[in-house]
Amino acid sequence: MRGLLIGRFQPFHSGHLEVARYLRERKPDENLLLGIGSSEESFTPENPFTASERAEMIALALAEANLSGCLTVPIPDIDRHALWAAHVREVVPPFDRVYTNNPLTRQLFERDGVAVESTPLFRRESLQGLKIRSAILEELPWTLFVPPAVAEYLGRIEGAQRVRLLGPE
Amino acid sequence: MRGLLIGRFQPFHSGHLEVARYLRERKPDENLLLGIGSSEESFTPENPFTASERAEMIALALAEANLSGCLTVPIPDIDRHALWAAHVREVVPPFDRVYTNNPLTRQLFERDGVAVESTPLFRRESLQGLKIRSAILEELPWTLFVPPAVAEYLGRIEGAQRVRLLGPE
Amino acid sequence: MRGLLIGRFQPFHSGHLEVARYLRERKPDENLLLGIGSSEESFTPENPFTASERAEMIALALAEANLSGCLTVPIPDIDRHALWAAHVREVVPPFDRVYTNNPLTRQLFERDGVAVESTPLFRRESLQGLKIRSAILEELPWTLFVPPAVAEYLGRIEGAQRVRLLGPE
Amino acid sequence: MRGLLIGRFQPFHSGHLEVARYLRERKPDENLLLGIGSSEESFTPENPFTASERAEMIALALAEANLSGCLTVPIPDIDRHALWAAHVREVVPPFDRVYTNNPLTRQLFERDGVAVESTPLFRRESLQGLKIRSAILEELPWTLFVPPAVAEYLGRIEGAQRVRLLGPE
Amino acid sequence: MRGLLIGRFQPFHSGHLEVARYLRERKPDENLLLGIGSSEESFTPENPFTASERAEMIALALAEANLSGCLTVPIPDIDRHALWAAHVREVVPPFDRVYTNNPLTRQLFERDGVAVESTPLFRRESLQGLKIRSAILEELPWTLFVPPAVAEYLGRIEGAQRVRLLGPE
Amino acid sequence: MRGLLIGRFQPFHSGHLEVARYLRERKPDENLLLGIGSSEESFTPENPFTASERAEMIALALAEANLSGCLTVPIPDIDRHALWAAHVREVVPPFDRVYTNNPLTRQLFERDGVAVESTPLFRRESLQGLKIRSAILEELPWTLFVPPAVAEYLGRIEGAQRVRLLGPE
Repeated sequence: MRGLLIGRFQPFHSGHLEVARYLRERKPDENLLLGIGSSEESFTPENPFTASERAEMIALALAEANLSGCLTVPIPDIDRHALWAAHVREVVPPFDRVYTNNPLTRQLFERDGVAVESTPLFRRESLQGLKIRSAILEELPWTLFVPPAVAEYLGRIEGAQRVRLLGPE
Repeated sequence: MRGLLIGRFQPFHSGHLEVARYLRERKPDENLLLGIGSSEESFTPENPFTASERAEMIALALAEANLSGCLTVPIPDIDRHALWAAHVREVVPPFDRVYTNNPLTRQLFERDGVAVESTPLFRRESLQGLKIRSAILEELPWTLFVPPAVAEYLGRIEGAQRVRLLGPE
Repeated sequence: MRGLLIGRFQPFHSGHLEVARYLRERKPDENLLLGIGSSEESFTPENPFTASERAEMIALALAEANLSGCLTVPIPDIDRHALWAAHVREVVPPFDRVYTNNPLTRQLFERDGVAVESTPLFRRESLQGLKIRSAILEELPWTLFVPPAVAEYLGRIEGAQRVRLLGPE
Repeated sequence: MRGLLIGRFQPFHSGHLEVARYLRERKPDENLLLGIGSSEESFTPENPFTASERAEMIALALAEANLSGCLTVPIPDIDRHALWAAHVREVVPPFDRVYTNNPLTRQLFERDGVAVESTPLFRRESLQGLKIRSAILEELPWTLFVPPAVAEYLGRIEGAQRVRLLGPE
Repeated sequence: MRGLLIGRFQPFHSGHLEVARYLRERKPDENLLLGIGSSEESFTPENPFTASERAEMIALALAEANLSGCLTVPIPDIDRHALWAAHVREVVPPFDRVYTNNPLTRQLFERDGVAVESTPLFRRESLQGLKIRSAILEELPWTLFVPPAVAEYLGRIEGAQRVRLLGPE
Repeated sequence: MRGLLIGRFQPFHSGHLEVARYLRERKPDENLLLGIGSSEESFTPENPFTASERAEMIALALAEANLSGCLTVPIPDIDRHALWAAHVREVVPPFDRVYTNNPLTRQLFERDGVAVESTPLFRRESLQGLKIRSAILEELPWTLFVPPAVAEYLGRIEGAQRVRLLGPE
């Protein structure tokens, strides 16, 4: 059994980690695919990090949290929304259900016959990619919102400087 | 440390498995990325199986062989050869070296500053994707050339029928 | 003789129908091509409906209005404006003139040597795709602005719910 | 009710016309969509004529044959075979079944849940696009194989000269 | 030795000309490549002029200014920022350094191992493409901001009318 | 006045140089654009060299031959033949005529209203890109067929090794 959780992970934050932990604990027999959306995008305000960097952030955070049974997989965009769910099913390993709280993602997968479930949201008021990118941009504290391993990795690749260089969305 | 082995895996055959085993045994501290090349291609004579199906074949074969420390990742084609190595580096998790016996792949990565190593070839006279697809096409025995889990999986998805439907390359 | 009227028809509304009727009545010897622009777009706030759904709306509305002599044809976008008129001429059946009130469309076709004519606008203050999509979004009355057959069809495919799901432009 | 018959119609020949007539006679309540495949291709040996020219050939041949209830619609290629059936369903007006004798087309649509039926083939030994293009190329008699209106139209646009200019496939 | 200065040149204005003159005077042994960015774009508010028109503007302005040793070269966009510097290096003649004041351009080239230098900015408060396009749009005086040859050329191709037709960015 | 000569220049050989010299001598008032076709292609058997390398070959050969008044410009492919001439006109500086001996190129430009002229062919039996690439591949003498500056440049970038690595077309 496999479940699929799609995000852009710009960056991979503590909310993502909590959802992964929640799903791995509740469904120990189900491996979790972490689909890295918009994988071809990078060095833009909305998508500062490459798929490669995002996969590395996730690997480091999962290792730090001792979470096994997860597999990251890049998902390039397809600019045809009506074909998107079929595209995802062709590109990632076979999966049994999708976890999402996004209504459009839900509709596109359901239209394609895929089971969709919601997940709890963890501290949604602060744990959102856009809010974290804004905090980085404005030099507010942001490392609290990501796993320590992600903060350390972003320090190493000068990720905050990149976000500031790219400017506001 | 991570090494990258790129193939199209149409299908994943015993030669691929032997290389993976060889690398995992010789370099136990190095995880192995299995890059699924031409990931967007499927249902053509040269690329009959989707990236999703190929990832599943590999997962089943690695589990059967008790090989851990491997991660599959789809790599879409980019039709600009001079940019291909940079494209791969952006899409897959960070890696330290590439394993290949293909001279063009070697040149493109070396031009990009990536370390490249050759691998032994295992029964190269029979273990090649093209030869196995031809055997399937001509209804010759072919299941000997793939791990049992791959033969079983291809039976389940009627893979041989698909290869025959698609016809010669 | 054929005339070409290009729109995105998101949705096909009563203003579109009135223009079609006007042209068919004034030029009974000229068939009317209804070019469905941005045909590859769907499930976005600006283009909620697929080309297939838009063609169906138009077919139902024309049948209801007893208008014959019209042919719908999808026109995919080409992201090179300077080539757009040549692209349209290659994709749709041969035509003798274009009907448009859009100055850029006019210029691109005239630059390409195509005759362009304006059409009357019918109740332009309310009969615009953007205004109708906004009315749907805000749950204001909108069915008055489209032919009954379109309102019925959108009810059947839950079109209003889709527009609300996709959110504001 | 609508049926869909997909072809490249390079050129529209008498075999195509016979199938259209057969389907219109046997299923008078079912309109027939003629999907012009590879619609973006032209001026190549395999696809000498534009979608616009092909739509015109078809319109002239259907008028000459007094066949009504048919609608031509261009279908651009999508280079992802696994998504092709979904792509067709998004682009052409809604249809209830596909008519094809091509096994791959059949499989791709059936995989997508669409009903598929075969059609009789009319004088298949001579009525094939490739054979007719070859006859044109070699200056053999070819006008017998297309409806008179198509022969007349190709004469008018100097179609045979174009095929010879483009050379062998 | 060659240097590369990249701009969109919408239009080529006096600030561009001053930088070119400055570089040609300071480095007489270094030819200057003028890379026309977003070369495939035209007839949009942000990119009103084709690459062909932009190359012509530049040629006329350089001739008028008696500046030799410059070569224009179109650079199409690539929608993958992480590959952009490699793409530029593949498309334009070999160069030794890039001149730019844009921090992202600087970072992308430096990441790719290319030497980058800043240039002085000449009357930056008025000499910016966006400001000049706005002045044209609002029918304010703008010809002062471009070399006389560019003003004359834009008059000839009715460039100001086009900018107004295309509307605000 | 400008003329346009399009080639792929894989590599730029003595036949190309002779045509350029012939045109510059016969039409001293007409600058010559050398359009580098398939500019995005490289590292393939048919297109071994990047546009950047091809531009450099041409620049060196023209300098060696003391030919001035020529400008190279890359021309990316567009996979829509019917739009190709319009695409070329948009991308390269304005030109008054095209020089070509290729009948399809002639037809596509004439269809677009561009004047086309033939040129003499110089030692066509040996001076063709395909023949020169074959000679390189088979390690036959080939440097006789290109200007000395091109032979020297290809030696410097190990061009012959690359052609052999890429293998037969």
